[in-house]
Amino acid sequence: MQRKVGILGAGQLGRMLALAGYPLDLHFRFIDPTPSAPAGQLSEQIVASFEDDQALVRFAAGLDVVSFEFENVPVAAVRKLAKLLPVHPNAEALETAQDRVNEKSLCLKLGIATPAFAAVESEQQLKSALGVIGTPSILKTRRLGYDGKGQAILKDPQDAASAWQSVGGAPSVLESFVHFDRELSLIAARSESGEIAFYPLVENHHRHGILRKSIAPAPRVSPALQKNAEETSRRILEELKYVGVLAIEFFEKDGKLLFNEMAPRVHNTGHWTIEGAETSQFENHLRAVTGMPIGSTKLRGFSCMLNFIGALPDTTQLLKIPGCHVHLYGKEPRRGRKIGHCTLLADSHQELMERVALAEKLVQDDG
Amino acid sequence: MQRKVGILGAGQLGRMLALAGYPLDLHFRFIDPTPSAPAGQLSEQIVASFEDDQALVRFAAGLDVVSFEFENVPVAAVRKLAKLLPVHPNAEALETAQDRVNEKSLCLKLGIATPAFAAVESEQQLKSALGVIGTPSILKTRRLGYDGKGQAILKDPQDAASAWQSVGGAPSVLESFVHFDRELSLIAARSESGEIAFYPLVENHHRHGILRKSIAPAPRVSPALQKNAEETSRRILEELKYVGVLAIEFFEKDGKLLFNEMAPRVHNTGHWTIEGAETSQFENHLRAVTGMPIGSTKLRGFSCMLNFIGALPDTTQLLKIPGCHVHLYGKEPRRGRKIGHCTLLADSHQELMERVALAEKLVQDDG
Repeated sequence: MQRKVGILGAGQLGRMLALAGYPLDLHFRFIDPTPSAPAGQLSEQIVASFEDDQALVRFAAGLDVVSFEFENVPVAAVRKLAKLLPVHPNAEALETAQDRVNEKSLCLKLGIATPAFAAVESEQQLKSALGVIGTPSILKTRRLGYDGKGQAILKDPQDAASAWQSVGGAPSVLESFVHFDRELSLIAARSESGEIAFYPLVENHHRHGILRKSIAPAPRVSPALQKNAEETSRRILEELKYVGVLAIEFFEKDGKLLFNEMAPRVHNTGHWTIEGAETSQFENHLRAVTGMPIGSTKLRGFSCMLNFIGALPDTTQLLKIPGCHVHLYGKEPRRGRKIGHCTLLADSHQELMERVALAEKLVQDDG
Repeated sequence: MQRKVGILGAGQLGRMLALAGYPLDLHFRFIDPTPSAPAGQLSEQIVASFEDDQALVRFAAGLDVVSFEFENVPVAAVRKLAKLLPVHPNAEALETAQDRVNEKSLCLKLGIATPAFAAVESEQQLKSALGVIGTPSILKTRRLGYDGKGQAILKDPQDAASAWQSVGGAPSVLESFVHFDRELSLIAARSESGEIAFYPLVENHHRHGILRKSIAPAPRVSPALQKNAEETSRRILEELKYVGVLAIEFFEKDGKLLFNEMAPRVHNTGHWTIEGAETSQFENHLRAVTGMPIGSTKLRGFSCMLNFIGALPDTTQLLKIPGCHVHLYGKEPRRGRKIGHCTLLADSHQELMERVALAEKLVQDDG
């Protein structure tokens, strides 16, 4: 019965996976170059680079299945592991999600709306692309971008040189800048047998490119909008023969959704599911990758998650707020770093917003 | 911020404490003579007897607070540890709860109704006590009894000799046998500052002296009955200056409660609180012993917990039941052994009972 799951990456996502998996008698081995990473504090961890082939072999020994909590693991490492044992999600899904051009090209193929985009590999190509995409637009590195890093906004074609410099001349994508009304995300889980479950759309608030707040369910979402998001997710999940949890971030503009990006893993905008849904995204990811049935994604009231960025709030005061649940990741505070979060629960959206207002007075992040 | 909690005993209760504490950045060290005990599988464990003084000193080093998940730890060990660091609940509470005569004597002192009882230390005393208590009655060892072990029912005064033999001649208590209508229990948590929170009364079903099922909230409980249970608990908590979670088991007879026994720890009849209450008994115990505020005990729907005794059910089938949450303890199946549980949640008592009926077809225990 007891199964052992290997996870590439041992950050807070891995930590919350382990906490969700222990009750199902799943055991874990993580691999991560950082000693005493959040997940390593409560599970076995191999401290090694994802590019260390010998470490990968040691990592794989005795595991039943491999997954990842970090989409920037080398695809080569995942392909090597996939020769030894099942890896979910698969390498193709990882490769697609790692690259902004690949994921948007997949959208084109599947008829999913995205902002206008063009791949650029040189300053010259950037200038040509600007002729098509226009300004304002945004230049993003194709790979390794997260939390707003590796991005530059172009207000004018003359910004091309500085933008190209600020992405370090890396292969990039130029996207039309969308004056969106809000950002929404959808978390879905697909099992090996093809069963799919969706959580409701969540409304996300970023500052300086870092997620600060997610409200679940997102207010003012029509059944048609939810259905549209689910249909988008379903097409991608089925096209990629995806197994596990997939997060898709959307822009909402004039009541329509535009695909922004996806993450082939459990996601910060799904942390509220630990308390706010019948089954959490972490448990559902593990159920999917170990061949168990997907659990109900039914809501348990109204939820809002607040990230703790760079500084720890007074958790004793936070815990006095009704419906407040605190999650700390065992990380040292550092500027711009996600070191924990809290999820507030309530029986109505209004009660939720009152609790969030109390919590936001305590959750003072670092900018 | 990070605090380290030491727990005497590393069984499933300790395991669920660790799982509830990690999100609060609590770290754990367990001491237990059984290697790879359930909690030791996901935390630091010192494998040693509770009577090994040197091991206790090693155990205490660097801890912020000590608690226990097992009430049969030697009081002497707790007193030794209490000289080194805070121990919650305190040694007096432990000593009281370990001994059926002590706990019932406390009830007498506090005006709490119990079945008639008498301490007996010899067969001769048993015979005298039978003259007062009468039959049917039940002889129980004062200490170390759990899951129905160390008990004998006397239907007739002539059963005295065999009953005395079946408790091994250990110091015991003779209690009037109560033809109760049902068994109920109350879980409460008290903080260092004296704040107390109660969960609702739970209805418990035993077979062969082992808990099989708990229904929360217990159906057909009047506000007066709940209030009576809470008042009983409050008197005991305050009298003992108790810090942590306390469980009290009651008999209900003709609409009145009789104190049966108490456990100075998180309790099997409170496992449903992981999903069924806003804050679980495990988190509230940890919040109490580490000086954090007690969390809301508000219900999140209707819950029923089923123990897995001696055999593992088909968890894949179980997980297909809506609202079913599975908890496995990492223990080898063995006759009469609690190796896991599931909690079913629903939006109404009737829906809950339908789900329980489905689950009970799968949870086939060993007798």
